[in-house]
Amino acid sequence: MLLVALAGGIGAARFLSGLVRVTEPTQLTVVGNTGDDLVLNGLHISPDLDTVAYTLGGGVHAGQGWGRAEETFAVASELRERYGRSDWFALGDRDIATHLVRSSMLAEGHSLSSATAEIARRWHLGFALVPMTDEAAPTRIRTADGRTLHFQEWWVGERAEPAVEQVDLSAARAASPAPGVIDALAAADAVILCPSNPVVSIGPILEVEGIRAVLSGVPVVGVSPIVGGQVVRGMADRLLPGVGVEVSAAGVARLYSGFLDGWVIDSQDAGHAEAIVAEGVRVAVTDTIMRTPEVTEALARTVLDLVAKLRGDGR
Amino acid sequence: MLLVALAGGIGAARFLSGLVRVTEPTQLTVVGNTGDDLVLNGLHISPDLDTVAYTLGGGVHAGQGWGRAEETFAVASELRERYGRSDWFALGDRDIATHLVRSSMLAEGHSLSSATAEIARRWHLGFALVPMTDEAAPTRIRTADGRTLHFQEWWVGERAEPAVEQVDLSAARAASPAPGVIDALAAADAVILCPSNPVVSIGPILEVEGIRAVLSGVPVVGVSPIVGGQVVRGMADRLLPGVGVEVSAAGVARLYSGFLDGWVIDSQDAGHAEAIVAEGVRVAVTDTIMRTPEVTEALARTVLDLVAKLRGDGR
Repeated sequence: MLLVALAGGIGAARFLSGLVRVTEPTQLTVVGNTGDDLVLNGLHISPDLDTVAYTLGGGVHAGQGWGRAEETFAVASELRERYGRSDWFALGDRDIATHLVRSSMLAEGHSLSSATAEIARRWHLGFALVPMTDEAAPTRIRTADGRTLHFQEWWVGERAEPAVEQVDLSAARAASPAPGVIDALAAADAVILCPSNPVVSIGPILEVEGIRAVLSGVPVVGVSPIVGGQVVRGMADRLLPGVGVEVSAAGVARLYSGFLDGWVIDSQDAGHAEAIVAEGVRVAVTDTIMRTPEVTEALARTVLDLVAKLRGDGR
Repeated sequence: MLLVALAGGIGAARFLSGLVRVTEPTQLTVVGNTGDDLVLNGLHISPDLDTVAYTLGGGVHAGQGWGRAEETFAVASELRERYGRSDWFALGDRDIATHLVRSSMLAEGHSLSSATAEIARRWHLGFALVPMTDEAAPTRIRTADGRTLHFQEWWVGERAEPAVEQVDLSAARAASPAPGVIDALAAADAVILCPSNPVVSIGPILEVEGIRAVLSGVPVVGVSPIVGGQVVRGMADRLLPGVGVEVSAAGVARLYSGFLDGWVIDSQDAGHAEAIVAEGVRVAVTDTIMRTPEVTEALARTVLDLVAKLRGDGR
């Protein structure tokens, strides 16, 4: 069964680590968000793609869910102390090696897709990891105090503190999909929306030219990133109101209306099932908090079961 | 007294550390060789400029004479082990911070001169450090077995083992001098040739457009890099025959004929003094092996004394 997963960072990577245990990785394509990408000290950094590669490749810092295990910070310390460079964005030494591979390939004229494929190969991922676009597509945050910040400047640099007026995805909207993305989606037996932030992780992917359109012709199943009316991690609670969406399992499902066929929600949100079903979306209720590999694997199975039911429905 | 020093790496840096103790650094401009520069993993590396900055800034690995003190190699180890990148050229973590500053400034459209000035400022050098050119000017080695290698591929990558057929400085010959280089040379009260390799360190600088020409109008004093008929360090013994020059204090002086006015040679080479004087070059004989700061400072004083005599001569 050909699957495509749309993925952000930490939540997606954790979910995918369950998914690859219950499906054939060579049948899977993961399309990663690059709205968070930034260039810092000349290094092209793709935080979400790297979180997927490090997590699925077994090199992630398990405690924080991003960055490298057993990381050191010699380069960052020198950049700060000797060269007075700002260190608002953590750059570990091992992590920098990844950014150097990516940045040097880009400088040699390779695409972000090619660099990502090389990194995926070196981490022995087994599935295809593809950026949503090869073009720059930075998500920008318009703050209530009138500034426009790169997503990372707001999220990491200002700890997501300034109130959000608007999430600007215009760069994603102007971007072409990376080679193979549309073909993979069109050929997929099902598309999975990982439990990632719907506004700044899945949102930018959906905005890339042609992606939302192709989704309406394919069974789409998502995992709700909301548990008990709250975000599991991250800052969807700061961002959802900014796009006029209720912070709930039903609110996020509504954000995906038009193409969402199945929605996996947490047991704590079972009360929302009826409202979601009323919108024509099949619902599965299970434990979505991925505390252990077993829970994560069970969640992935629930997703695949829902896919099977939808395909049985003829969707 | 306005001085300009033409400099390679280790020998030049050591000599300059003596020179700045006996003259006013703000009156000094150091023009560095960039024929050794290379781009590796997307990083623009300027080995000679960095050796000068690290040595004069107090951050050099004293034992090896290049690279950073208390260096670590986390990035290089990851590049090698995870990404299969060749590690023929040592890249330490602290060193990489310097290369990131340089490379990111270049990527932002700054010149190599500007990046070098920023690095010099951060190392509190006190004198002006200027690359010979802002353009790429790689020295190439034509080997006896018919290959053309970047200087660093031959020198570091193949440990200078392949016999040299020709040293190709055509890239330097096609390069324009960096802004300020010709003006500094023309305004100088004297130009000093540091005890650097005459073929691959001083040689490329001399080839850059307009530099050799301006030298004939200024008193030029050099320190011989040959002691007792041998090179103190490096591989001039492999390279001098390749350009048809005798490995001796007199042979190198002859290589500089046409603009050399004074030549400081080692006591062990005193026997060559007569031959050099016969060519119209003033000679000073002293201890040129810079074992201690005191010897180095005395050598610098000898150079300045020779400059004073030449200016007394009206040269």
